[in-house]
Amino acid sequence: MRFIPKEIERALKEIQKIPGYGERGARRLLYGLLKLPDQERFSVIKALAEAVKTLHPCKECGIYTDKEVCDICSSPERDKKLITVVEESADAYAIERLGKYRGVYHILGGRISPLEGISAEDLSIDRLIERIEKYQPYEVILATNPNTEGEATASYLAYLLKKRFPQLKITRIGFGAAFGAYLELLDGQSLSNALENRRGF
Amino acid sequence: MRFIPKEIERALKEIQKIPGYGERGARRLLYGLLKLPDQERFSVIKALAEAVKTLHPCKECGIYTDKEVCDICSSPERDKKLITVVEESADAYAIERLGKYRGVYHILGGRISPLEGISAEDLSIDRLIERIEKYQPYEVILATNPNTEGEATASYLAYLLKKRFPQLKITRIGFGAAFGAYLELLDGQSLSNALENRRGF
Repeated sequence: MRFIPKEIERALKEIQKIPGYGERGARRLLYGLLKLPDQERFSVIKALAEAVKTLHPCKECGIYTDKEVCDICSSPERDKKLITVVEESADAYAIERLGKYRGVYHILGGRISPLEGISAEDLSIDRLIERIEKYQPYEVILATNPNTEGEATASYLAYLLKKRFPQLKITRIGFGAAFGAYLELLDGQSLSNALENRRGF
Repeated sequence: MRFIPKEIERALKEIQKIPGYGERGARRLLYGLLKLPDQERFSVIKALAEAVKTLHPCKECGIYTDKEVCDICSSPERDKKLITVVEESADAYAIERLGKYRGVYHILGGRISPLEGISAEDLSIDRLIERIEKYQPYEVILATNPNTEGEATASYLAYLLKKRFPQLKITRIGFGAAFGAYLELLDGQSLSNALENRRGF
């Protein structure tokens, strides 16, 4: 080990703290970065440092924002009585890019996944219930990913919310997408269809 | 796009400068980083920044080092007349970890890959020839990866070097590894076997 620079060993170890990164992914990232010319190496690191320094979950909805309460939650143009529940911020950004949605979001922070050891308690469900009590929405759209775990999470949430708020309209996005796809990577048309074709629970 | 933080867009764009990173990989890295608690976010970034700031190719062999000439090339214990040619620094580190090899390395910086548009001119072959002229090694071990592109690169180098240095002993690592494997990920025993069972060209 004597002749391996300690910066390499340390960086490989640190990278593996990132969820989803193993030894292979760590090497790919580090050696990829090192292959870049000096100036680009630094601009990548700077952009990452900036994102990591600036972005934190919105106190209200949980989406990544540079403010205490995000631009969406604090906008008077957005309807707080229409809440779309998504797994991650990236999913909300995908919906934002459509430029059509006028409600607000709620970021669960994942999906129920026994395989990955993620249970309902790990998701921000209590906060969702608080927000429903506070804002009395006329509709909650469950927009977890159109795959097995996303469906299970949506079913669980629908059951829980129906029991607690019997009058609440709860809908699930329509399957404009192939089963097994990732919401954040859908083309705009399919995502748009999925939102339009949402069905009641 | 109005409500997507600019730091997200910028970071996703920057990450895609890293070789091998597309939109998907960029999202995985950024959102993975953002999921970490504050302290860990910064320790990952700091380790990356440190690696990127400190490490540059060794003037002699091309391996990543924090010095002008690496610890291996400048060590009086290492035999400069035995050169092992590898694709990347990571491959040399894999051999270093065995703790058995006493020669020096030469980092090609990749392999000949028509699919990725990498030709012989993109590799540090001229520098290898200079080093052979300077150090007059008794053996050059070609330790490119045991897959199609690695084999093609080794064959090309063997042809080139034989023509230029007819007396030079050129060997190829033995196939202790399954064809298609990656050198840097081999277990120590297979890698050790591969080095021992090297054959002449």
